[in-house]
Amino acid sequence: MRGENMLIDHLNARIIKEKSPIVVGLDPRWDLIPEAIKHENLKAYGETFKAVAESILHFNKGIIDAVMESAFVFKPQIAFYEQYGIEGIEAYYKTCQYVKEVGGIVIGDIKRGDIGSTSEAYAIAHLGETTIGNRSLKAFDSDFVTINPYLGSDCIAPFLNQCQTHDKGVFVLVKTSNPSSGELQDLFVGNTRIYERIADWVHGWSIKTTGNSGYSSVGAVVGATYPEELKRLREKMPNSIFLVPGYGAQGGGAKDVVEAFDSNGLGALINNSRGILYAYRKTGENYQIAAKKAANEMKASIVLELERVAK
Amino acid sequence: MRGENMLIDHLNARIIKEKSPIVVGLDPRWDLIPEAIKHENLKAYGETFKAVAESILHFNKGIIDAVMESAFVFKPQIAFYEQYGIEGIEAYYKTCQYVKEVGGIVIGDIKRGDIGSTSEAYAIAHLGETTIGNRSLKAFDSDFVTINPYLGSDCIAPFLNQCQTHDKGVFVLVKTSNPSSGELQDLFVGNTRIYERIADWVHGWSIKTTGNSGYSSVGAVVGATYPEELKRLREKMPNSIFLVPGYGAQGGGAKDVVEAFDSNGLGALINNSRGILYAYRKTGENYQIAAKKAANEMKASIVLELERVAK
Repeated sequence: MRGENMLIDHLNARIIKEKSPIVVGLDPRWDLIPEAIKHENLKAYGETFKAVAESILHFNKGIIDAVMESAFVFKPQIAFYEQYGIEGIEAYYKTCQYVKEVGGIVIGDIKRGDIGSTSEAYAIAHLGETTIGNRSLKAFDSDFVTINPYLGSDCIAPFLNQCQTHDKGVFVLVKTSNPSSGELQDLFVGNTRIYERIADWVHGWSIKTTGNSGYSSVGAVVGATYPEELKRLREKMPNSIFLVPGYGAQGGGAKDVVEAFDSNGLGALINNSRGILYAYRKTGENYQIAAKKAANEMKASIVLELERVAK
Repeated sequence: MRGENMLIDHLNARIIKEKSPIVVGLDPRWDLIPEAIKHENLKAYGETFKAVAESILHFNKGIIDAVMESAFVFKPQIAFYEQYGIEGIEAYYKTCQYVKEVGGIVIGDIKRGDIGSTSEAYAIAHLGETTIGNRSLKAFDSDFVTINPYLGSDCIAPFLNQCQTHDKGVFVLVKTSNPSSGELQDLFVGNTRIYERIADWVHGWSIKTTGNSGYSSVGAVVGATYPEELKRLREKMPNSIFLVPGYGAQGGGAKDVVEAFDSNGLGALINNSRGILYAYRKTGENYQIAAKKAANEMKASIVLELERVAK
């Protein structure tokens, strides 16, 4: 079924236009934020979650502004905000809002998943609208979220419903980038690994929701630390955009992610968090200048590698 | 290894003393909260998240007060708070605080799980303490949380660390109670189902952390909708407390959960959410009276069934 899938078609058009398939992961850590930002907020609010939350928001806005030349997709990881309490989550909310204000796209990295009625609450919270009497309000307004498949299809269905109703997207965890990912995901069920089984599910959902650009609102998280698997999974899920973590700090490079793309350079979003956010700690430069350079370099490396492979 | 495991030993002592292995799930839904509570807050705050959050907190406190005679463990499901935005999450926080104020135990039903560094942030957020300069602050102070095993052991380890440091506990999703749970969890890896494999992991972690009462801080979520599996899993995880959802609204009854207990009536916590919270909608009584009766009945049914089986 081909049809309207505005978010995905817009995303793909923009990836081509801006030659940028990169995602900047916004994983704020208090101990890694520049001292000048922290100093100002500690003076105003003391050693409180408020001081942290204000520092995070200041830092994130600085990063977003700095890298907009080479990146327009941002992925805040909500765990790093939850650890700073309600104020931290407010910083998550405001970060998502700021990305939208400046014309970016937000992937809420929430990895939620629960029984149907609970998944529905999560889906409403992050992709949909909450109804209160005659009003509809958005709790956390992401374009995409990441979701965990352990509970099966009725954990996923409420998210797919919100994708259809509100023109949103999801990335289902298929193969993650962490060292122990194989303990469950690599086990064989008959002749098929578990992550391949999940990939088959994702493909099944994706073919029902594929837009004009050939891609679906149902994507997959596929770690860059396993390049040979990327290739096989690319074949298994031809309509799904891959969200590929693990570039930079987790060990993956441009050569390792190239298999995630189709022959037109579409179909993959490559995430880098620490390698961009905290580049300044290696170079000693202003954090915005360092982040901008790191994002530009990452984008250039991937574009170069895609051109090399296309020849 | 037997040793100090104060939370678990305290929990078990109290289950015996109060003859109560029941958990009240606090899953607030705006459309099911009594009109009188909503009316008051709509008048004060309009159709806003603030009005919802205040109503939820009022309702939850009313439920907690009403059922304390037969229940002392409460399980707020965070999804139902996230859907009401930052104000909703503040109601989650205050609900956890209130349970502690009145001497109850909190299971934060968050089902988180991510790569190591991210799981660490979640573990700090919900079980540990966040460090800001010279201060340590608690973001969301639960006694237990639920966690998802799809990413393997390095997703679990940070939670286990916080359990040890702060005397907390976890329930790992093993076999869930939803209709589609079998799609992944029931698949065979060799001769073993996936959920049995996860049960083996849980047992491995539990034997390292077992306290004087014979139970560990590492428990398991095992759905009551599958009683024959409960028995097998009880044998596989003798040191783990089972958190059993699915009682009441999801179809399970006292007969279905009895296999989750050991011969001393320990080893299981049986959750009921909707059947207690919204009992008033069936009986037409005041919501607190109806909840109190429903909790008392549930407790009595389980105690009776345990006595019947013990004979």
